[in-house]
Amino acid sequence: MTRVAFVGLGAMGLPMASNLLRKGYMVTGFDLNASALDTLEGAGGKRAASASEAATEADTLILMVVNAAQAEAVLFEGGTLERLREGGVVVLMATCPPAAVEAIEERVRQAGRRLIDAPVSGGVAGAKAATLTIMAAGPRDMFETVKPLFDAMGDKVFHVGDRPGQGAMVKTVNQLLCGVHIAVVAEAFALASKVGVDLNILLQIMSGSAASSWMLKDRGPRMLQSHPEVTSAVDIFVKDLGIVLDAGRHTKAALPLAAAAHQMFLAASGRGDGKEDDSQVIRSYYALNGIR
Amino acid sequence: MTRVAFVGLGAMGLPMASNLLRKGYMVTGFDLNASALDTLEGAGGKRAASASEAATEADTLILMVVNAAQAEAVLFEGGTLERLREGGVVVLMATCPPAAVEAIEERVRQAGRRLIDAPVSGGVAGAKAATLTIMAAGPRDMFETVKPLFDAMGDKVFHVGDRPGQGAMVKTVNQLLCGVHIAVVAEAFALASKVGVDLNILLQIMSGSAASSWMLKDRGPRMLQSHPEVTSAVDIFVKDLGIVLDAGRHTKAALPLAAAAHQMFLAASGRGDGKEDDSQVIRSYYALNGIR
Repeated sequence: MTRVAFVGLGAMGLPMASNLLRKGYMVTGFDLNASALDTLEGAGGKRAASASEAATEADTLILMVVNAAQAEAVLFEGGTLERLREGGVVVLMATCPPAAVEAIEERVRQAGRRLIDAPVSGGVAGAKAATLTIMAAGPRDMFETVKPLFDAMGDKVFHVGDRPGQGAMVKTVNQLLCGVHIAVVAEAFALASKVGVDLNILLQIMSGSAASSWMLKDRGPRMLQSHPEVTSAVDIFVKDLGIVLDAGRHTKAALPLAAAAHQMFLAASGRGDGKEDDSQVIRSYYALNGIR
Repeated sequence: MTRVAFVGLGAMGLPMASNLLRKGYMVTGFDLNASALDTLEGAGGKRAASASEAATEADTLILMVVNAAQAEAVLFEGGTLERLREGGVVVLMATCPPAAVEAIEERVRQAGRRLIDAPVSGGVAGAKAATLTIMAAGPRDMFETVKPLFDAMGDKVFHVGDRPGQGAMVKTVNQLLCGVHIAVVAEAFALASKVGVDLNILLQIMSGSAASSWMLKDRGPRMLQSHPEVTSAVDIFVKDLGIVLDAGRHTKAALPLAAAAHQMFLAASGRGDGKEDDSQVIRSYYALNGIR
């Protein structure tokens, strides 16, 4: 039976590790948060005192940390990577820039281990329900080896390419679409409000037309509120569209829409609205166009 | 019983007029195409030899012509507007720039008639099935008077505001969202293709995620074909995003995403792809970023 080390037991990592336990995997976890380790033990897992202890003699090391810098710290500081069984697989599920994944993979390979790139989407709800979307990239045979683990955590498991970094690129492209879709709804509402169109009716019409998007239906209603509940902050898209543009720079691809959308989120953050719901990027359009 | 004049019996106008006849309205039609008049007669309508003859003593004059210039020619040349019953209502259903609608409405009002602005969406299929979306703007009482006619032609009838031009703005905003949504899918695919991601799998993932849009699902598959069937041409969005930007100029609203998207359609047309399916705006991204 596969021995799994799991590092990063946050709001998503903990339910993901619990779903592995539920499928019968032996999971040894580590997180700086002791209460997450208590919960893992309660679900039948083992606690480790460090990432390197968790990785010791494991076949697979899953990383569900916050970003690439944390992934690098876990792997390359404290000898964690070397404790993993020779030929063992690092499964990098954190959201990282594609270029960072490529760099990490190279170092892992040089140390005699392998890496598969497998970012997720679906949020905390998807993590709990084991309905995550998993976008994995790496050699097909490695993907097939690890796939039973993915199937325990998600129900939309895709092999998007043979090279680590391609999974991160799919996640990056996902964020490109999401960020631009939010900003363009704000742009559309701002234009319509210039001539006094009722935005609630506009939203109703657009939601049922070819102009519709998932983001229009989700963020549109909150865009019409002055201080909506924060489901995801402006600063998340300042970061994520930043990763998109970094990926564009790295691959030398001009991304005019993503660049323009990023400016609007950036300006919103600069005016002090970084912690507001990302629908409030509409305030950038209102400020720019002198509305209200 | 309301006497309706209907000018512009094209692919959409003819089924719309037929739906009015089906509901028992008396419809007198005019179009330069004689065979459309034959069809109208066959459906129980009357044919007129000119727009002004059609409008004579009518209560309502519906215009389903190609653009604002044609609407102006019909109304203000040949005395058509004056033939309409005093206090009669012009129903402008053609897609026109908001500013043009405002100008037309002013001339109609000065001639002692009234205008309601009521562009549609839903295409030929919606026109035939009487399932059009109708976005009407004008005083509420006028809207209520004309609403039975709208209900005969569409099943999503909205009163979007009290001032003519607001309907045209809703249609304009619809095209803003549609055009940017197509362009951003192309931008996303171009970035992903830079690192060799399988675009068919990418499309499948994005279609089921928060990155989804109506346009992603509709145009995405054709974006992956080299010479797809033309359902709507690049040049339509050159024109429609042009109307969007004109509306922005007229109301003094900066529209950075619409402006950037327009450039990509414009460049596609400039390279000779204006008659291609609008999904082929992706070729602008491929050309720009040296892909293929």
